[in-house]
Amino acid sequence: MILKTFRVLIADLCAQFKGGHPGGAMGMAAIGVALWKYTMRYAPHSPGWFNRDRFVLSNGHTCLFQYSFLHLTGYPDMDWEQLKSYHSDRADALCPGHPEREHEGIEVTTGPLGQGVANAVGLAMATKHLMGTYNQPGFEVVNNHTWCMVGDACLQEGVALEAISLAGHLKLNNLTIMYDNNQVTCDGSVDMTNTEDINAKMRACNWDVIDVQDGCYDIDGIVAALKKARSSQNKPTFVNIRTIIGVGSSVAGDAVAHGVALPADGVKAMKEMWGFDPEKSIVESGDLTQMRDFFEELPERGENWVAEWEERVASYKKQHPKLGKELEARMKGDLPLGWEDVIPAKLPDGPTATRKSSGLTFNPLAERYNTFMVGTADLSPSVNLMYENKNAFQHPELRTTCGINGDYTGRYIHFGVREHAMCAISNGLAAFSPGTIIPVTSSFFMFYLYAAPAVRMGALQSLQVIHVATHDSIGMGEDGPTHQPVELAALFRAMPKILYMRPGDSKETAGAWEVALRYRDGPSMISTSRHGLPQLKTTKRDLVAKGAYVLEEEEHADLTLMGVGAELNFAVNVAEELRSKHGLKVRVVSFPCYRLFEQQSTEYRRKILRRHEGIPAVMIEAYMAFGWERYADAAICMKSFGHSLPSKLAYKHFGFETGSMTGKVLDYLERRKSDPLLEREFVEL
Amino acid sequence: MILKTFRVLIADLCAQFKGGHPGGAMGMAAIGVALWKYTMRYAPHSPGWFNRDRFVLSNGHTCLFQYSFLHLTGYPDMDWEQLKSYHSDRADALCPGHPEREHEGIEVTTGPLGQGVANAVGLAMATKHLMGTYNQPGFEVVNNHTWCMVGDACLQEGVALEAISLAGHLKLNNLTIMYDNNQVTCDGSVDMTNTEDINAKMRACNWDVIDVQDGCYDIDGIVAALKKARSSQNKPTFVNIRTIIGVGSSVAGDAVAHGVALPADGVKAMKEMWGFDPEKSIVESGDLTQMRDFFEELPERGENWVAEWEERVASYKKQHPKLGKELEARMKGDLPLGWEDVIPAKLPDGPTATRKSSGLTFNPLAERYNTFMVGTADLSPSVNLMYENKNAFQHPELRTTCGINGDYTGRYIHFGVREHAMCAISNGLAAFSPGTIIPVTSSFFMFYLYAAPAVRMGALQSLQVIHVATHDSIGMGEDGPTHQPVELAALFRAMPKILYMRPGDSKETAGAWEVALRYRDGPSMISTSRHGLPQLKTTKRDLVAKGAYVLEEEEHADLTLMGVGAELNFAVNVAEELRSKHGLKVRVVSFPCYRLFEQQSTEYRRKILRRHEGIPAVMIEAYMAFGWERYADAAICMKSFGHSLPSKLAYKHFGFETGSMTGKVLDYLERRKSDPLLEREFVEL
Repeated sequence: MILKTFRVLIADLCAQFKGGHPGGAMGMAAIGVALWKYTMRYAPHSPGWFNRDRFVLSNGHTCLFQYSFLHLTGYPDMDWEQLKSYHSDRADALCPGHPEREHEGIEVTTGPLGQGVANAVGLAMATKHLMGTYNQPGFEVVNNHTWCMVGDACLQEGVALEAISLAGHLKLNNLTIMYDNNQVTCDGSVDMTNTEDINAKMRACNWDVIDVQDGCYDIDGIVAALKKARSSQNKPTFVNIRTIIGVGSSVAGDAVAHGVALPADGVKAMKEMWGFDPEKSIVESGDLTQMRDFFEELPERGENWVAEWEERVASYKKQHPKLGKELEARMKGDLPLGWEDVIPAKLPDGPTATRKSSGLTFNPLAERYNTFMVGTADLSPSVNLMYENKNAFQHPELRTTCGINGDYTGRYIHFGVREHAMCAISNGLAAFSPGTIIPVTSSFFMFYLYAAPAVRMGALQSLQVIHVATHDSIGMGEDGPTHQPVELAALFRAMPKILYMRPGDSKETAGAWEVALRYRDGPSMISTSRHGLPQLKTTKRDLVAKGAYVLEEEEHADLTLMGVGAELNFAVNVAEELRSKHGLKVRVVSFPCYRLFEQQSTEYRRKILRRHEGIPAVMIEAYMAFGWERYADAAICMKSFGHSLPSKLAYKHFGFETGSMTGKVLDYLERRKSDPLLEREFVEL
Repeated sequence: MILKTFRVLIADLCAQFKGGHPGGAMGMAAIGVALWKYTMRYAPHSPGWFNRDRFVLSNGHTCLFQYSFLHLTGYPDMDWEQLKSYHSDRADALCPGHPEREHEGIEVTTGPLGQGVANAVGLAMATKHLMGTYNQPGFEVVNNHTWCMVGDACLQEGVALEAISLAGHLKLNNLTIMYDNNQVTCDGSVDMTNTEDINAKMRACNWDVIDVQDGCYDIDGIVAALKKARSSQNKPTFVNIRTIIGVGSSVAGDAVAHGVALPADGVKAMKEMWGFDPEKSIVESGDLTQMRDFFEELPERGENWVAEWEERVASYKKQHPKLGKELEARMKGDLPLGWEDVIPAKLPDGPTATRKSSGLTFNPLAERYNTFMVGTADLSPSVNLMYENKNAFQHPELRTTCGINGDYTGRYIHFGVREHAMCAISNGLAAFSPGTIIPVTSSFFMFYLYAAPAVRMGALQSLQVIHVATHDSIGMGEDGPTHQPVELAALFRAMPKILYMRPGDSKETAGAWEVALRYRDGPSMISTSRHGLPQLKTTKRDLVAKGAYVLEEEEHADLTLMGVGAELNFAVNVAEELRSKHGLKVRVVSFPCYRLFEQQSTEYRRKILRRHEGIPAVMIEAYMAFGWERYADAAICMKSFGHSLPSKLAYKHFGFETGSMTGKVLDYLERRKSDPLLEREFVEL
């Protein structure tokens, strides 16, 4: 009766506003009971309990499933009025169309399919790492399990497949994927697009597989499977649960049960069949007494678990005071004390690639503080994040051919060539508990386009993840246009909440790291060069935080030259040539971060730009100019994809030599004189 | 000796400029000989032969492998001087750091890992489709095979895993993946990140698997495997070939053999061991006589194959004149004659979602012309591209639960929930031969972020692929911020070569399709609304091609309001209110395509914008304003991620009601008066 009531509830909730995704939630009812009542360890009245099991709804469109169980199990925020707000007009609803991390009981925001799987892998890795680092004989201070619900679609998405492969490799036995195998997606039955043997595939990826045949009603069978999954010794578990989408309704098993409210007569028939009044809506009557009783004891059970755990932690702290103190600090999530002093005050004087400066800045922190987990999508030799004494995050029994092994205390993550999973997993690491782990990812900047959907989800969820994007300009050279990211900065500059920073030399690189470390409310991306860059005299580490600042001032200026990242030194050189050979008065502005500058006061911005005094501003960046129109009148920029040539020649090929840039600027200033309309028109030089 | 010479050649080519990726190319030498000498059907002197086997180097960084074989087998463009240009200063080199489609003998540009696999799946699907459509008993006018070389990395990338799953489902027996299994990537041995049973995984995905143990030297074994692969009856084949990276050199089997020139002493030792003069560089001596002899007959063999095929086609045309004529036209790649007349001249008068108008415009063409293959990433019910009498592209024996079956003549592709593979596969379909197939993809606009790396590669390769991106604004509503693409347009507007178009009503949607169909040199993206939009009186179908045009003119104007896509009608409404209630003279400009407008003459642009006359321009779009600074002084825009609310309320929540927008504009005009500096500053309202 509980299952039937739950299903009618879902149908009626969708019927209210004639929309939503009822079918999956109805199909998964028994899985939900097995999870929330019989399997997961959590505390509805202490939703932030550090050692709680984590639940991820990767098939986020079935969010009503989760919302309903949050309500029934007694999460305070998800009261009856809130539950009814699904698809309503309420702007403050806790029932958005996909679960959102800001709300009580939701671990991660899901919706873009497949990513939830990777988030769950990250959550399970976080647990493994904390277990390895802090658990001591007799003291399991961390031992939670991660449960991830997926639908047919998630298992088709590349990001999930990447994460599944890695999770099997890492032997994350504290991770269970529950597959709501209803064989229906929007287009029709899944066998239209996918006829693989998923169990065999998961086994090939080093997962245990458990089948449940009657996932619609066999609660006991599901519970047994989940218990077995929790006790797995050395593999993650895939529970393949056959269900029927929209079970009980007139459209059961059909694709139309997926994404629209069920037909009214079908709901009526279902109610009649199951002994409900066909004319009455549960949503209107609110008659959920039986279900509420069924789940009644859960909050208390949860509080008992929490109390027991708190006791355990208290005696752990006595027995292991040093570790206890560190764990406490990490649970609080503050930045490690004294980190500012660990960043080197001095960096190399000579020409240095900013990817190298980046490593020099951050690696001492990574070495010293457990807070940081540093990953790479197979570009360790290129991204310069191999800190001293690094230890790889690996299953302790792994023995590799190359001899690089590790264990779960390890904080250097070899993600493999899996950029998208790397960033989605890192979101999971960060989401485990605010600030406990600050994940750092790394790859070539261009390949953050592969990972962009996950970078976006990190921004949307305000997760502090630091992305180290190297090889960020056409100066990366021979690899050619497939690797030269001429348009990608536009995406990350336009994306809300993320700080995309392109430092121009070592000092600015250190400044960018300081900003990224202090920015707790979202991801940062530090975008660096492959090739050596000169150290500029007037760059300022602390002014990176302003987004832009003046490198070289000039009271009565003819021109402001602006530069950014690997091209900042071009601006300095061109300014020098314009001064020495052409007698112009030229200011130079460094512009490492668009978003940070935008956040400054109007006064500050005007002081930096001085366009209001009629001083024309020319930006130099080897990207598409798109977006710089806000702050510049013209740009020396890319107008096409790049070209495979050695670094210097690639710049030359596209007109970024000092002489030719100087000529372009002079020509532009001339043209402005002859055509004053140009003053109101952005020009690509 | 051939293999040894080849390997020394690779080492010496990398030694010239002290860079490049030697290891993989050296390891694959025997595979190359097996392919180019004994397996593939191609014609070096007729590189464009329609029925040639297609070869894709998905591990594109090993491009020297392909360049060397193109040289040795006699492709005219790849002469000795050109081969030596790898990593040189030559801007006109045919040996860029990754293979590029523009060059003779290269089918697709590769480099971003994993995508080559999906491209190959697309090429094989193109063959299957053409075979199904044109081959007749006794006349195999198309029967080529697609060969795809992959490394360890490609098999970790999600896009490849998606494509592999689909290819197995489609039973593409004309596709072979050759896995250069050297178990080394940049970070070290592959077992650091991947310990799955790849053979079992491929079998689970419905692939045949053949093992080759000695891939470094056993040419016969490789040839036998490839022959077997070509004759596979109903599955694609995965040939797992064990090789040693940098075989023969001092760093054989080591990660350092991957991406830098080999150590000089190691190359010397290798030469000595193999009986070469250790002091001599093959590159300098040019002594390749023996190798050239070995491949000498290949051009002639190729020409014989071409002649034989041409004869076959000639008699086919006699026997099957109608089909023959159609095939000939498709080989030429022209747009189907008369397509303009098939697009409906009239579209609905009432409020219509542009996603619906889009289907109404294009579906008659899709129905009528074999040129179009229309795919969706599992959103058939939402994207409105189910044309009349559509037939699914499927293996003819497939019998699905939902009853939707098909065969290889089918042109409606159910890609599954695999956005990235969908677009990368579509690049392969388009790359088969210019214009033979025009692929159309579809998904929600937001999920083109998953596919963006492939969309980019389509743009870089100038491939005509049309992307139908629906649900493109916050007006898509309840699905919430995970599905509301506030920043994504910035990426596609900044990306070179692609036309990103947001039409404002049905007429503009039809206009956008006409532009996309005529644009043969790159992809287009038609971005449409989920919700109904009013038909505007003054929109013009043919002016979409200009990028922007005047909807409502006013000689002495106080203001230009600009709108785009789903928000275009807001501009019209606000203009009306500003006129009627506030007596302002307001012009209205529609701005469907940023890039097309950019391509217009300065004169045209000034005529449309009239900012030079001092008329302030305000853009209305529910995206981040990023980029509009070029053409507007202010914008009513998004400043954050979206929110889960029903369509109208989502707009209201973010201030897009006529009244509040009118207020914002009036306020802005006032502020401009009191602070004239605002005239030089972009303002978000």
